[in-house]
Amino acid sequence: MNRLNEREIINIFAQELGINDLDDVSPVGKNLVLKCDMLVSSTDVPPQMKPWQIARKSVVSCASDLAAKGARPTAAMVSLGLPAGTARVFIKGLAEGFARASKEFGIKIVGGDTNEAVELVIDCCMLGKIVSTMPQRSGAKQGDLVVVSGLFGPPAAGLSMLLKGSHASGDFVKRAIESVLEPMPRQKFGAALAKFFSSSIDSSDGLAISLYEIARNSGVDIWVDTIPAAAGLEEFATKYGLDAKELVFHGGEEYEIVATIPRPKFRQAKLAAKRARVNLYPIGIVKKGQGRVYVNNKRLEDRGYVHFSQR
Amino acid sequence: MNRLNEREIINIFAQELGINDLDDVSPVGKNLVLKCDMLVSSTDVPPQMKPWQIARKSVVSCASDLAAKGARPTAAMVSLGLPAGTARVFIKGLAEGFARASKEFGIKIVGGDTNEAVELVIDCCMLGKIVSTMPQRSGAKQGDLVVVSGLFGPPAAGLSMLLKGSHASGDFVKRAIESVLEPMPRQKFGAALAKFFSSSIDSSDGLAISLYEIARNSGVDIWVDTIPAAAGLEEFATKYGLDAKELVFHGGEEYEIVATIPRPKFRQAKLAAKRARVNLYPIGIVKKGQGRVYVNNKRLEDRGYVHFSQR
Repeated sequence: MNRLNEREIINIFAQELGINDLDDVSPVGKNLVLKCDMLVSSTDVPPQMKPWQIARKSVVSCASDLAAKGARPTAAMVSLGLPAGTARVFIKGLAEGFARASKEFGIKIVGGDTNEAVELVIDCCMLGKIVSTMPQRSGAKQGDLVVVSGLFGPPAAGLSMLLKGSHASGDFVKRAIESVLEPMPRQKFGAALAKFFSSSIDSSDGLAISLYEIARNSGVDIWVDTIPAAAGLEEFATKYGLDAKELVFHGGEEYEIVATIPRPKFRQAKLAAKRARVNLYPIGIVKKGQGRVYVNNKRLEDRGYVHFSQR
Repeated sequence: MNRLNEREIINIFAQELGINDLDDVSPVGKNLVLKCDMLVSSTDVPPQMKPWQIARKSVVSCASDLAAKGARPTAAMVSLGLPAGTARVFIKGLAEGFARASKEFGIKIVGGDTNEAVELVIDCCMLGKIVSTMPQRSGAKQGDLVVVSGLFGPPAAGLSMLLKGSHASGDFVKRAIESVLEPMPRQKFGAALAKFFSSSIDSSDGLAISLYEIARNSGVDIWVDTIPAAAGLEEFATKYGLDAKELVFHGGEEYEIVATIPRPKFRQAKLAAKRARVNLYPIGIVKKGQGRVYVNNKRLEDRGYVHFSQR
């Protein structure tokens, strides 16, 4: 079949436009970066999500991308495609969600565009200020430590519960579902630590994809020796017949930051994390190589939550 | 019915977010403005439009908005929603269209986002630099002259031909169809003349809507005494049983600039237009009032190409 996956599609645009990566945060002037992220209801919105949560999520994706680069968001715009006859209460809900996100994440929403469309689509475009220097996806070097801003699994676990319409309860399930409906971008983590990163990315396409992006773009291998699984994930997975490792590495919709830090800077980074009261989890190291990722000495599958090819 | 029109929808967002107008170009820093515009295939793309023309058009809308404000575009991003299984040749066509628009309009496309969606959606987000001061929609003053950058009618005429699948030929029809498939933003006009404007807007929602936007936001009336109809429009309209005035005022998808110029600056503006080799058409004057528009002493209907209510 001649069906293109997301990576192939991005490559066509990137090549034609002469840019490195269509999907990354883009420099647009002195210390300024721009990032757009489109939320599409048929692929990005579980049915249980309330209008305000949908609007908020559309802002979270951009905020997370900027956070991974240590950029402070200065302004955002939201373009909307709304199905004909969308109810006033739904539109008010979206508007409240934007207002809430604006306050919660300290981002002024300055304008936008409204249109009629077949399904609900929200494109958020965010302008940010780089505080120190911007880490790329391509800066990881042999010997660097690989770190993450949080533990993985809850969004994938929560999504599986939501899509099944499960009424399961318990602390883990509750937190997992909350992590899907009200994700948190790691703004404090990025602000405190980006200056130490040799490379970084946000994990919204999944941890495996994120690690591979860094490994490939940096021309290195990544060896993970500590699987960053959230507390309770293993137990949850066993109970519901799911694979915890799958949930950690190939889930996606997770707004953690994945980065590399040169070893000599790690002590300082740990202190900065402590001062900022954010977690910093070392999960592995960077080795000489050609874009491969290993977990406990075994090659990790290079796949995840890719929009196109997985469906 | 409780069906909201576009203006009502914009007002809900604008109010909730505490911004003046969701739909206008937005200041985002010293001399910087941001504008997003979403193109939706089910409402904005006639079936005859080729992929490269679709991509180009999505860039034209933003370029036109910036031109009306005298802003020089510095960078753009494009977020795409693509139906599953979109052919490689179609995607290549889109990419070529972006590259072409980038070159044609002098706008660097720096990045974007790709997603799966039910229909083709492109959101273009453009950053621009204000060269002098930015004219608002609200600055028109009693006594100002109302001007436009070109003559109206061809896009509406062309669209009616395209939607009918007409095989009509002739110079006017050819130009009219071209104006739909390959619209031109008035960048030179904006760059040369924006410094003289007391108010301005681009005419993509239709000339009537644009005049009303200025009149309402400025708290004035506008009296049009010269209908800016394109050469050949009257003849075309008669031949095909259409109303020329309707095509001029209520068409839309026209990327002209509608502005007001204080009378003392008009001579200078005319000279600047001549030097820049752009047309400048005075069509009426601004009078004391409350947001009304008159054409040859008759009240103009306040309607046009509004996405929601017209369908």
